Amino acid sequence: MSEPLILYDIPSTVPGQAWSPNPCKTRYCLNYKGLPYKTVWVEYPDIEPLSKKIGALPTDVTNGKPYYSLPAIYDPNTKTVLAESALIAEYLDATYPDTPKLFPAGTHALQHAFVPAFMQTLSALWQFALPATNNVLNPPSEVYFRRTREAMFGKKLEDVVPSGPAANEEWAKVKAAFDIVDGWLQKGEADGPYLTGKEPAFADFVVASFIWWFKKIWGAESSQWKDIMSWNNGRWEALIKGFEKYETIV
Amino acid sequence: MSEPLILYDIPSTVPGQAWSPNPCKTRYCLNYKGLPYKTVWVEYPDIEPLSKKIGALPTDVTNGKPYYSLPAIYDPNTKTVLAESALIAEYLDATYPDTPKLFPAGTHALQHAFVPAFMQTLSALWQFALPATNNVLNPPSEVYFRRTREAMFGKKLEDVVPSGPAANEEWAKVKAAFDIVDGWLQKGEADGPYLTGKEPAFADFVVASFIWWFKKIWGAESSQWKDIMSWNNGRWEALIKGFEKYETIV
Repeated sequence: MSEPLILYDIPSTVPGQAWSPNPCKTRYCLNYKGLPYKTVWVEYPDIEPLSKKIGALPTDVTNGKPYYSLPAIYDPNTKTVLAESALIAEYLDATYPDTPKLFPAGTHALQHAFVPAFMQTLSALWQFALPATNNVLNPPSEVYFRRTREAMFGKKLEDVVPSGPAANEEWAKVKAAFDIVDGWLQKGEADGPYLTGKEPAFADFVVASFIWWFKKIWGAESSQWKDIMSWNNGRWEALIKGFEKYETIV
Repeated sequence: MSEPLILYDIPSTVPGQAWSPNPCKTRYCLNYKGLPYKTVWVEYPDIEPLSKKIGALPTDVTNGKPYYSLPAIYDPNTKTVLAESALIAEYLDATYPDTPKLFPAGTHALQHAFVPAFMQTLSALWQFALPATNNVLNPPSEVYFRRTREAMFGKKLEDVVPSGPAANEEWAKVKAAFDIVDGWLQKGEADGPYLTGKEPAFADFVVASFIWWFKKIWGAESSQWKDIMSWNNGRWEALIKGFEKYETIV
């Protein structure tokens, strides 16, 4: 290893600036592997121009248009630019084979299947978490985030959050989603505490990144954070505490 | 190994009687492991009384009522009754440790997460496959299946199958679902041709069971079967041909 990699992440008003679960996956991966890097902060409206400038490919197509997103990395050691956290994790495994593996042998296909399964399972979360996210963004990102997410939901962000009895019902669905993931992990307890066994893998960092997001958008004193820390016999509390050493933002 | 296990499966009018993807998973598992067994055929209305009689637990709760389903097994060597294909696979791995593993170490949690992810991905399939299934059932099962599935869809089975331009659009969604699964498998090609590497695992038999179902309900001369055999550079054709040796119904 010689030069530090660059991690492109989205800033906010929270201490340390980082808040976004997707770049968090890559930060966990880089810290877990002990690879030196530094963060470059990119506000939402600048993601597409930056991606085009450095040569990062779109990570999706929405309504027929290419969609650019972070995380992206630049690795000066190989002159490689890459976007999308799973692709970045595969790249880091292949390029730095002496660092701990994010995709242990025999888990590539299943970990790639896990990510959309986990996101689908969490579908009740977005109505709570996206409006809360908007509250912590810097002004240029806030304007962009509000416009795009209000188009997605078809209503004002303030009206997206469930209220009254629906708030409890919908929050119970978030808990039910974590119950499902807890069930998968229980099935694997003979292998170890993590999704692929005794050591964390990419899929564990995916799960942890969304829990970490709770703390960033609601804070450690919030009922949301206290709730999730109490769920599933403290499984998520143990997970996030175990990964604190990989949370460092540099 | 001494006495053969019993596999409880649902009969039909197709040659060999077997047609149902869920018991097919267990048949693949038993044949793959080389465990002797014999099939006992149970029509749909008899599944709940049979399950209660032998002591098989419900596999789900629907509308607050316990739901009994097949496959179930009885293992006379350990006096064990068990329902639900993933639980049965775990049991077979644990009870017959000298047979090939369905859950290699480090894949338990991810394989359990894979099954619902795969089912969710296939959501466009049911509108085609459930009415076709109804056509091959014996009379007592046909009456039961029609009543329960028409309640599920809220319309007659004959009206569930898309027609006109919707037929092509919806069938394209079935292909898109297999494209997604193909994408996961491509990500794992460095590990081997199967979901966890060089040898089949439970999740591979889950995928194959739904493809095998196509052949049973539509036949090998149908456009549906020829379609899927042509998809994804012949991946499903190779998979199902490779598993033919585990299709034997005894």
